[in-house]
Amino acid sequence: EKADLDLVSILINADIAVGDIAHLLETTPHKHRLTLWDFVADALQGEVLTHLNEDIQQSFLARMSAEEIVETTHDIDNDDLADLLQQMPEGRSSRVLQLLAPEERSQVEGLLAYPEDTAGGLMTTDMVTVRGDVTVAAVLRYLRKISLPDALDRLWVTNRQFHYQGSLALTVLLTAKPSSLVSDIMNTDIKGIRAGEDEEQVARLFERQDLVSAPVINDDGIVIGRITIDDVVDVISDSAAHNMMSMAGLDEENDTYSPIVKSSQDRAVWLGINMATAFIAALVMSQFEASIAQIVALAVLSPVVASMGGIAGSQTLTLMIRGMATGHIGQSNLTWLVLRELGVGLINGSLWAIVIGVITFFWYHQVSLSLVIAAAILVNICIAVLSGTVLPFFLKAANIDPALSGSVILTTLTDVFGFLTFLGLATLFLL
Amino acid sequence: EKADLDLVSILINADIAVGDIAHLLETTPHKHRLTLWDFVADALQGEVLTHLNEDIQQSFLARMSAEEIVETTHDIDNDDLADLLQQMPEGRSSRVLQLLAPEERSQVEGLLAYPEDTAGGLMTTDMVTVRGDVTVAAVLRYLRKISLPDALDRLWVTNRQFHYQGSLALTVLLTAKPSSLVSDIMNTDIKGIRAGEDEEQVARLFERQDLVSAPVINDDGIVIGRITIDDVVDVISDSAAHNMMSMAGLDEENDTYSPIVKSSQDRAVWLGINMATAFIAALVMSQFEASIAQIVALAVLSPVVASMGGIAGSQTLTLMIRGMATGHIGQSNLTWLVLRELGVGLINGSLWAIVIGVITFFWYHQVSLSLVIAAAILVNICIAVLSGTVLPFFLKAANIDPALSGSVILTTLTDVFGFLTFLGLATLFLL
Repeated sequence: EKADLDLVSILINADIAVGDIAHLLETTPHKHRLTLWDFVADALQGEVLTHLNEDIQQSFLARMSAEEIVETTHDIDNDDLADLLQQMPEGRSSRVLQLLAPEERSQVEGLLAYPEDTAGGLMTTDMVTVRGDVTVAAVLRYLRKISLPDALDRLWVTNRQFHYQGSLALTVLLTAKPSSLVSDIMNTDIKGIRAGEDEEQVARLFERQDLVSAPVINDDGIVIGRITIDDVVDVISDSAAHNMMSMAGLDEENDTYSPIVKSSQDRAVWLGINMATAFIAALVMSQFEASIAQIVALAVLSPVVASMGGIAGSQTLTLMIRGMATGHIGQSNLTWLVLRELGVGLINGSLWAIVIGVITFFWYHQVSLSLVIAAAILVNICIAVLSGTVLPFFLKAANIDPALSGSVILTTLTDVFGFLTFLGLATLFLL
Repeated sequence: EKADLDLVSILINADIAVGDIAHLLETTPHKHRLTLWDFVADALQGEVLTHLNEDIQQSFLARMSAEEIVETTHDIDNDDLADLLQQMPEGRSSRVLQLLAPEERSQVEGLLAYPEDTAGGLMTTDMVTVRGDVTVAAVLRYLRKISLPDALDRLWVTNRQFHYQGSLALTVLLTAKPSSLVSDIMNTDIKGIRAGEDEEQVARLFERQDLVSAPVINDDGIVIGRITIDDVVDVISDSAAHNMMSMAGLDEENDTYSPIVKSSQDRAVWLGINMATAFIAALVMSQFEASIAQIVALAVLSPVVASMGGIAGSQTLTLMIRGMATGHIGQSNLTWLVLRELGVGLINGSLWAIVIGVITFFWYHQVSLSLVIAAAILVNICIAVLSGTVLPFFLKAANIDPALSGSVILTTLTDVFGFLTFLGLATLFLL
């Protein structure tokens, strides 16, 4: 038994990167997770913590005293510490802050001032700045005296007032003449990022310019921090995951291995909302009960009309949400997009209206029923693509996450209009 | 007019990163795109090309002769050139290859030997290797003589037989004593990645270990290339986008601004497949036309049963697909997951069965109808979560993309079983 536990401890801490330990914890069912956590070497716990998803971070942090948290996290980057503090209840995070060394506390407090989803919230204050009017030799002497932060690829160059001037790549520094002036060999292509910039904008900037790190400046143009690619990678994968998970009413920070009761709660709300929309559609259908009682085929075919609209709409919606996330789609392209989607809706609507009309004719041998379903399909697909295009813009303007609410609202619309057009036209022309 | 065009040309090439030019092109409707492309300075076209999505790359490449392609791409990384060649028809890419300088041709041909979605397909041969038994001073002299590749953060250290031994960070090199031996100061935590490793595994490795670059080795352990974070970022954002887009039957490489006819074609197939599944469900429902004719409420409530199953199933499916992509879910956790999801299905199934039963009672005032719909909801939600859990594993084992086919198959299952259980139970107990 004891030997087994020693083995576990060796396995966990031996030759594994902290990210791998975090992964191991995340893929362990929750009831064994605390046991495993206790095996993680104290020196690694801080770094491991920063790699876990928020659900699990919270469950571990909740078990630790403020003193333990300070001890565990004393060697992690101050931006990661700020992120952890942001998740704790107010009283608890201020207790942790009070236990920090004065210099670190003021740094972390400075970082906490920026919203989590801005450049300021992403940055670390761990950086190296040099003045433009010094020589390469002086910079090299300076670097030998300080401890260099992780993933350093560039130094920030400032003037005497600490205004950002440009950056100096380590590759350039390595091969430059010792007598060269920093300002003569620095790169000015990488611009300072304002602390208030949205994190998704920052991510796009990194993607488009293939950056490894970028400087953050305040409103006066003074360098206040550095954003590194590892944090940007998290933004990129979280944002893509967020859109995908939200469309199914899930939270990307939720723990895959959470217990049954918690998982059930996480998903119950979404089921409830969708039940409400299903009943709205049912209510619309029930208005036509008299027609259905006369022509039962209407009951059989109604879901086909609703579902074709749902699919066409969700395709458009997915394209829009993805396009907004990558910055490909904005307000300025709206008119063009609406016309394009309407064109697509008319083409695909007509195509599938004909196909479904023909199938219906061979099934029920009624020309009038076929014409009615064909018309309903065309109308519903056009309504679906138009709603799918316009809805995300409305939701965004109203500060509602289109990925989360878009699909529910869209399904409601396509169900309601599908039933209305099909059953309405049938009632008008078939009875 | 002429002045306008000059202005455009200045705007495009002046102070914009190539990624931004690519973004501008991607967000321009296709008919203006070629005009804009001609304004991009020749010296930038190659780099801009590598930043475009495949749809647009192909449309530009198709207009260029093999000679023009060679000229345009002569200063891009050889891994990016290999990626472009992989998209061309066989005959064309071999014409381009023949026009390359012999050394470059053999490098690119070497890269083309690796499948696009492996470490070998991601790597560039642009790297710096040094021997472990030389001094820091010798390395620095060597670096001054060669041209350093972009985004270089580490050198690879090898023995005399070019076997990978470890890596030397530029930060360490900068501050090391000139007389130190490379092997004494190198880092051995970063392992060599086999050329055949799957690109998603590579991406996870970068995420977990916060890497900026990593060495690629062949089966003999010899260093053959370098993977850089910018290519990994593309893998991460493409993979997340792929899963989200596939679930709506869309291709993430498709151009947001493609013309109406092409967009319609891209989406028509998915609508057709979904039409087929909708008719399968309709066929099931039509078996119960006699029951529906007697109790029209069955027609009104059937879509509610099908839709609750669809939502519950798509939540589980999304969780599974996301978990597989992040490596959180694998074959080994399947039993645990099935039991967990069944538990979630029973809890949420019972909860919403009761709620929907009660609503149905207040609507139609029939206890038996309420009991039947409650039972059908419970059964369908349980079937949905079980299928959502198991289906992606089956599809993956059969080499079918779960994100692409999973949702169609699942919807078919939940529609069919929803109608079967509800209408079946109703026919048994209510008539």
